[in-house]
Amino acid sequence: MPSDLIRLDALNAMSAADFAASLGPVFENAPWVAQQAAAARPFASLTDLHKAMLDAIGALPPEALLGFLRGHPRLSAETLRRGTTAESTVEQTALGLDALDADLSAQLERLNAAYEARFGYPFILAVRKASLATLFATFERRLAASPEAERAEALAEISAISWMRLLDRVRAAPTGSVSTHVLDTVRAAPAGGLGVELWRREGDGAMTRILAFVTNDDGACDGALLDGGALCAGTYEWRYDTPTYFARHGYSTPARAYLGKVRVAFTVWNPEEHFHVPLLLSPGAYTTYRGS
Amino acid sequence: MPSDLIRLDALNAMSAADFAASLGPVFENAPWVAQQAAAARPFASLTDLHKAMLDAIGALPPEALLGFLRGHPRLSAETLRRGTTAESTVEQTALGLDALDADLSAQLERLNAAYEARFGYPFILAVRKASLATLFATFERRLAASPEAERAEALAEISAISWMRLLDRVRAAPTGSVSTHVLDTVRAAPAGGLGVELWRREGDGAMTRILAFVTNDDGACDGALLDGGALCAGTYEWRYDTPTYFARHGYSTPARAYLGKVRVAFTVWNPEEHFHVPLLLSPGAYTTYRGS
Amino acid sequence: MPSDLIRLDALNAMSAADFAASLGPVFENAPWVAQQAAAARPFASLTDLHKAMLDAIGALPPEALLGFLRGHPRLSAETLRRGTTAESTVEQTALGLDALDADLSAQLERLNAAYEARFGYPFILAVRKASLATLFATFERRLAASPEAERAEALAEISAISWMRLLDRVRAAPTGSVSTHVLDTVRAAPAGGLGVELWRREGDGAMTRILAFVTNDDGACDGALLDGGALCAGTYEWRYDTPTYFARHGYSTPARAYLGKVRVAFTVWNPEEHFHVPLLLSPGAYTTYRGS
Amino acid sequence: MPSDLIRLDALNAMSAADFAASLGPVFENAPWVAQQAAAARPFASLTDLHKAMLDAIGALPPEALLGFLRGHPRLSAETLRRGTTAESTVEQTALGLDALDADLSAQLERLNAAYEARFGYPFILAVRKASLATLFATFERRLAASPEAERAEALAEISAISWMRLLDRVRAAPTGSVSTHVLDTVRAAPAGGLGVELWRREGDGAMTRILAFVTNDDGACDGALLDGGALCAGTYEWRYDTPTYFARHGYSTPARAYLGKVRVAFTVWNPEEHFHVPLLLSPGAYTTYRGS
Repeated sequence: MPSDLIRLDALNAMSAADFAASLGPVFENAPWVAQQAAAARPFASLTDLHKAMLDAIGALPPEALLGFLRGHPRLSAETLRRGTTAESTVEQTALGLDALDADLSAQLERLNAAYEARFGYPFILAVRKASLATLFATFERRLAASPEAERAEALAEISAISWMRLLDRVRAAPTGSVSTHVLDTVRAAPAGGLGVELWRREGDGAMTRILAFVTNDDGACDGALLDGGALCAGTYEWRYDTPTYFARHGYSTPARAYLGKVRVAFTVWNPEEHFHVPLLLSPGAYTTYRGS
Repeated sequence: MPSDLIRLDALNAMSAADFAASLGPVFENAPWVAQQAAAARPFASLTDLHKAMLDAIGALPPEALLGFLRGHPRLSAETLRRGTTAESTVEQTALGLDALDADLSAQLERLNAAYEARFGYPFILAVRKASLATLFATFERRLAASPEAERAEALAEISAISWMRLLDRVRAAPTGSVSTHVLDTVRAAPAGGLGVELWRREGDGAMTRILAFVTNDDGACDGALLDGGALCAGTYEWRYDTPTYFARHGYSTPARAYLGKVRVAFTVWNPEEHFHVPLLLSPGAYTTYRGS
Repeated sequence: MPSDLIRLDALNAMSAADFAASLGPVFENAPWVAQQAAAARPFASLTDLHKAMLDAIGALPPEALLGFLRGHPRLSAETLRRGTTAESTVEQTALGLDALDADLSAQLERLNAAYEARFGYPFILAVRKASLATLFATFERRLAASPEAERAEALAEISAISWMRLLDRVRAAPTGSVSTHVLDTVRAAPAGGLGVELWRREGDGAMTRILAFVTNDDGACDGALLDGGALCAGTYEWRYDTPTYFARHGYSTPARAYLGKVRVAFTVWNPEEHFHVPLLLSPGAYTTYRGS
Repeated sequence: MPSDLIRLDALNAMSAADFAASLGPVFENAPWVAQQAAAARPFASLTDLHKAMLDAIGALPPEALLGFLRGHPRLSAETLRRGTTAESTVEQTALGLDALDADLSAQLERLNAAYEARFGYPFILAVRKASLATLFATFERRLAASPEAERAEALAEISAISWMRLLDRVRAAPTGSVSTHVLDTVRAAPAGGLGVELWRREGDGAMTRILAFVTNDDGACDGALLDGGALCAGTYEWRYDTPTYFARHGYSTPARAYLGKVRVAFTVWNPEEHFHVPLLLSPGAYTTYRGS
């Protein structure tokens, strides 16, 4: 989390012009969104700020909405060659659109042309969290959608793009945290004494261990984790030392345990939320889900 | 899988003396086990061969069984310094018993002394698949067990140790394989078109990708995997490209998928068996288990 | 399954006029659907026959499709008073639309009026499998849908209605069956020796036990169940004698088992399909899903 | 819950002689257990009281323990004919031991004789919650156990028997309650607006609905359920109106939902505990477990 992020209280206190200047590029070629949102201050959270910006778009009449959608750049090497906004350049380059081989490039152009002919505006995707596989899989599906359903999808992507751009600029409210809870389904009781680690994927793809603890008698950790502003958006992984736990309880001979260490990868896309990840564990099966 | 492994048909055909010489060290300081098993040939599988060897031990009268258990070396740095069988030296060294710090070494000695005083024979553990954490966790638990339960555990460990030593010497029958099967619980239907990879942990701890495929309409792969003798004992990991699958089906905006790529680590300890690993998948949860 | 159902081979062999007469009421006020489908004979299954009929509707131009949708009766007491097709009379009466109290009746009329004003055709729902709670919950949701999404839902309901009417008239191909498979996740192995029963809900709501068996070593039954034409559409329930299984394996003292007998209710809406219902079982948890 | 149960505070306040008289029959033919426990008063809960009684048994030297075990009556029709304690008469009769057919009776006698020859005391089982199937399944398994393991099982059954007899006499502390929590794994979010009922099995086997509510936005109910002393030991069943929930969210056409209403049966054997039952729900699968 860069230390130069704007604080919410600073955003709430600055002039409307400064506010609009700070958040102008959050929506592509639509600085008016930030200008309108300035009037809805103060915001208690980034979530509320984002909602106010989306409300401004939701209030557009159909023609203006179409113009707004058309203000987004096509996803293509050609867009990068011609130049686009700084944000889109970074995002499209990260996806590798500047280095597609000829086949993929031609396939992308065919999809772009078909999409624009069908819907009247460019295909919009939050590419920073996408891979090329995701791009093409999503593109094929959405090309076949109805105009109404597709407009809803395009707006959902714009919501995702603008949210990530907000996270680049403003410090989230310190309301988020993570937790886990392990239930031993052999004994129908919490799994205490289980070694747990939390890892985070860094920008270069490497995983860094950021926490390690042993579950308490309730199968959880004592207190909240990564709370008070420590939680950042990104990809995380819980790692559970299940072989040692099984050995301690005599559930399986260490040499013949079926399950290896259990890993659960999850994405924190809103660091103002709580991400609770339970694990239901037995020697022959496990289940994980997003709890609440 | 080393190419110099003995073939089962060669073992079945050789002289009893050669058979006993080949498999003598499989049970610690008990070459008579291999000698007796020679008479039960031919064996259709390593599993059958191992069972014949265990049956020989199971037939021991109580006093002889105690002597057999006492023939196992204590797990300790001292054992390594004094010298023990080649097999035990490799195994105990791999666990790091030659390099314990003073505290752990003293703790281990205390546990060894308490265990031997209580049960009359050394603590036996299949250390090759254990970590120090597993060693100590298991030791504490088993020290508190009843003599009968503990003897059963010691024999289970001897079964595991001898099995691994057999795998070092003899080529398994080509009956094993692996498979996976993915069910999409949103649609209550197989998850076709999902990218899947199979990775294997190498001796140095690195992971190597050994297979990649896309699930067919039944959510599985076409044909058996790693069959015909290709499956080795070891640790494997299925990796499922769930984000792309969710994006294709519109289950989640790629930028806001909760689940990352799903990984399921499992251990193949008997390469003559089939390891079937189903995955029940939805955007908010997944379950995996050992199927059949 | 009434014995006077028409057989598929009889349908395939009869004159086009007889075919159309037999299946005319399957689509409401649209006997032309059956007439067109007659030309696509022979059909190997009811599933194929139904698909041919739906294809005829799918080929309608927009105006004709709207007319077809408008041919469906409003769901209301008024429709029943005025009279409608025999099929709709039975279906709406079964739901209780002839006996709504004044409040619900008024609520339904408001919903009907709002729906028809918004979409231009009556609200269509396969009411035979619905309850009043389902009716109102679905109505509110669909009233808020987009015209395109709602037309797709209306057609899905017509598909469901016509399918049930087909099942009333024609004997399904004998390709369906049911099965179950129980995995013991404590031992990571199939749950053999478990008592299982299959119950079916009769027309009067009572449950009848139709099968009972003990799982084999693979945690399943020997052979297929309800195959060869014995499977009918309807609601079924698997009942597993888990307390006895847990007691036999010593997983829980019978007096202190957390789980009671496990019941899994499922609906067979296409008796030409196979319904496989696995159960993953441990003393503290269970998971069931539609397998394949 | 009979209104004439003794209150814990009354038990704590009465004379040691009255205490011993009140609880004398809780352990079969061992009134001294209650006499000893009187000295450990006051008890904050039935759980604590029971623990004090079990501690008295745990302190017995081996010979005295064997005598205590031998004080239990054989499970058989003969025992009932000859007469035994009032409690055992009720319990064995409820299981149907007075009305076994000749084959089962002979089988039971063979098992009893084999067991007593092997272990030196009668087979002890908490029969009130057992069925004949459970009785025989458990008997076969325990007959094959080691003496140590079997003594532990016999004591566990005595714990269960005496616990049920305590529940017949003393009102539990009002610390228990039940709850449920439903997660929608399609949306990775709580399942709000889901109809839930709680049913209880009455003495005659009939089910009575005791609670009905609709889940709040967190997928749970507001406040605790059956708290403040309302929770009794017994068998309960959660029933979830999943078809209506799926219809409201458009997950499945009501006519083609795979899952029927979900039922989860569970046993409250300690009404001073909290029983939390989560449900993870999607159209194609569900998972339930004992939470905490």
